[in-house]
Amino acid sequence: MHDLTPEQIIRLEDGPPARVVLLDQRRLPDEVVELECTSAAEVAEAIRVMAVRGAPAIGVAAAYGMALAVARGEDLDEAEATLASSRPTAVNLPWALERMRTEPTAEKARELHSEEVERCKRMAAHAVSLLRPGTCALTHCNAGGLATGGYGSAVGALRAAWEQGVLERVLVGETRPLLQGARLTAWELEQLGIPYAVIADSAAASLMAAGEVDCVVTGADRIAANGDAANKIGTYGLAVLAAHHGIPLYVVAPTSTVDLATLEGAQIPIEERSPDEITTRFPARNPAFDVTPAKLISAIVTENGVHRAPYVESLAAPV
Amino acid sequence: MHDLTPEQIIRLEDGPPARVVLLDQRRLPDEVVELECTSAAEVAEAIRVMAVRGAPAIGVAAAYGMALAVARGEDLDEAEATLASSRPTAVNLPWALERMRTEPTAEKARELHSEEVERCKRMAAHAVSLLRPGTCALTHCNAGGLATGGYGSAVGALRAAWEQGVLERVLVGETRPLLQGARLTAWELEQLGIPYAVIADSAAASLMAAGEVDCVVTGADRIAANGDAANKIGTYGLAVLAAHHGIPLYVVAPTSTVDLATLEGAQIPIEERSPDEITTRFPARNPAFDVTPAKLISAIVTENGVHRAPYVESLAAPV
Repeated sequence: MHDLTPEQIIRLEDGPPARVVLLDQRRLPDEVVELECTSAAEVAEAIRVMAVRGAPAIGVAAAYGMALAVARGEDLDEAEATLASSRPTAVNLPWALERMRTEPTAEKARELHSEEVERCKRMAAHAVSLLRPGTCALTHCNAGGLATGGYGSAVGALRAAWEQGVLERVLVGETRPLLQGARLTAWELEQLGIPYAVIADSAAASLMAAGEVDCVVTGADRIAANGDAANKIGTYGLAVLAAHHGIPLYVVAPTSTVDLATLEGAQIPIEERSPDEITTRFPARNPAFDVTPAKLISAIVTENGVHRAPYVESLAAPV
Repeated sequence: MHDLTPEQIIRLEDGPPARVVLLDQRRLPDEVVELECTSAAEVAEAIRVMAVRGAPAIGVAAAYGMALAVARGEDLDEAEATLASSRPTAVNLPWALERMRTEPTAEKARELHSEEVERCKRMAAHAVSLLRPGTCALTHCNAGGLATGGYGSAVGALRAAWEQGVLERVLVGETRPLLQGARLTAWELEQLGIPYAVIADSAAASLMAAGEVDCVVTGADRIAANGDAANKIGTYGLAVLAAHHGIPLYVVAPTSTVDLATLEGAQIPIEERSPDEITTRFPARNPAFDVTPAKLISAIVTENGVHRAPYVESLAAPV
């Protein structure tokens, strides 16, 4: 099994001059190319254009961005503000910046990164307990190592399930418009040797009806205190479809994605990206996330364990 | 209002030599290019590769293909068999071939074509009665003039609604993998001057939840006697989502799409197209159609009127 190391996904090089080096996710799977950022503003731009994406990974990138700002002697308030405004939905970004505020060092950023990867492994161990042998799982977007800085949240759960022999195969929604499923998740599953097939997002419903989906497993970008979860556009639709077909939907995300200060999903800011990502020729709308209400989520798995409804209690007082 | 004429979409030129000329839908909207077919086999190939697509339009194409075979002195049994096997799901194809069997002439083919366009106009008049003023409609794939040989089924209903002032705007699912919504429906709506926006297919659910969709309007490729309707992959998912949000879903299709000999949706052959349409790099699955059970369809509109459940009665004995 070939595996991406956390350092291959994103790292801080001390230099001098210091720089943040990340795998450019826009160019995968065609090219495995690194992008070098020499300022916090460049890290913020890499987040904005989605050279690095995935809620935990952009938190890690922001942490390295602050360490880079320190190493480069930048104005730290400005660096933090620039990083904070790069994307609105994932709470991991302000969470990581908050964690870096008292001690914006390279050591602290690396610690935050390795803790995120560690959380993924603990989540995966909890999530496997939810899956029955022979599971065919549907996932959406990319909640793999690329999205978390290593190992993966939803894909981490699937790889642990595969290693333990309970996973049979994965269906991967291609995830328009940016195709994170078809480009990134497929690439990761290929390297991990896990059987999978990419599908058009709109094929999920009929495959559920045909009995080809035992569960839906996704990551999240922000989970409100009541369990409502923002994730890549399309997740909410999958949750409605899963409920209609009696199929469980599991959200696998670290506590860095849980935002107890946001009481419910309606308060989560939803990024609307450029219509050009859909089509440059005609008018288009491009909401990048949607909110799945807690009642459609069978369980939320964090590194602390498997949380069940009522989430307002189970998320606040970890199992 | 600019309008495609039926002859611009597809026509038989008598020659000599006779040929079928059709607007190559694969190249729209970038290029408005015609494709010439000089044998029934070339018409069948145009259907197979989806240079012409849409259930009524491929019926019309098959009819012209038979007239072409006659004009060219081809073996008619072979021509019919080749055309019949070009695509499996739309019943309009065998329906048109059956209609051509006793009188495979150019005149008969043109009559069949103009009747299909006439059906669309009658459907549209019936369908408008279902829509409330200020309607924001969601449609999927292309059920426009391109799909029917002129005027359109679902899009025909929307254009009539627009002309009568009851339609406010249209959301168009881009319809992966071949993007018939983003390429063809958007192009038609642009020419008709109807306000619209293209969306990723997976954005439909959250726009429904946000109250931005008053109804879903689609065409169909084959409607079974009990009202189960096969249509472009993704329609079934939209039907489940619409029902969840209390939004009506209307199927607008001519009686040439109704197959009373097929008792229920499970008997409709579903085309599985090449995975290369999804991705050439990774394993993929590409079912091209799905079946929406009758219970999720609020009404089926044919040229005979608005059919309601129980469809097994209302489709057999037109209103």
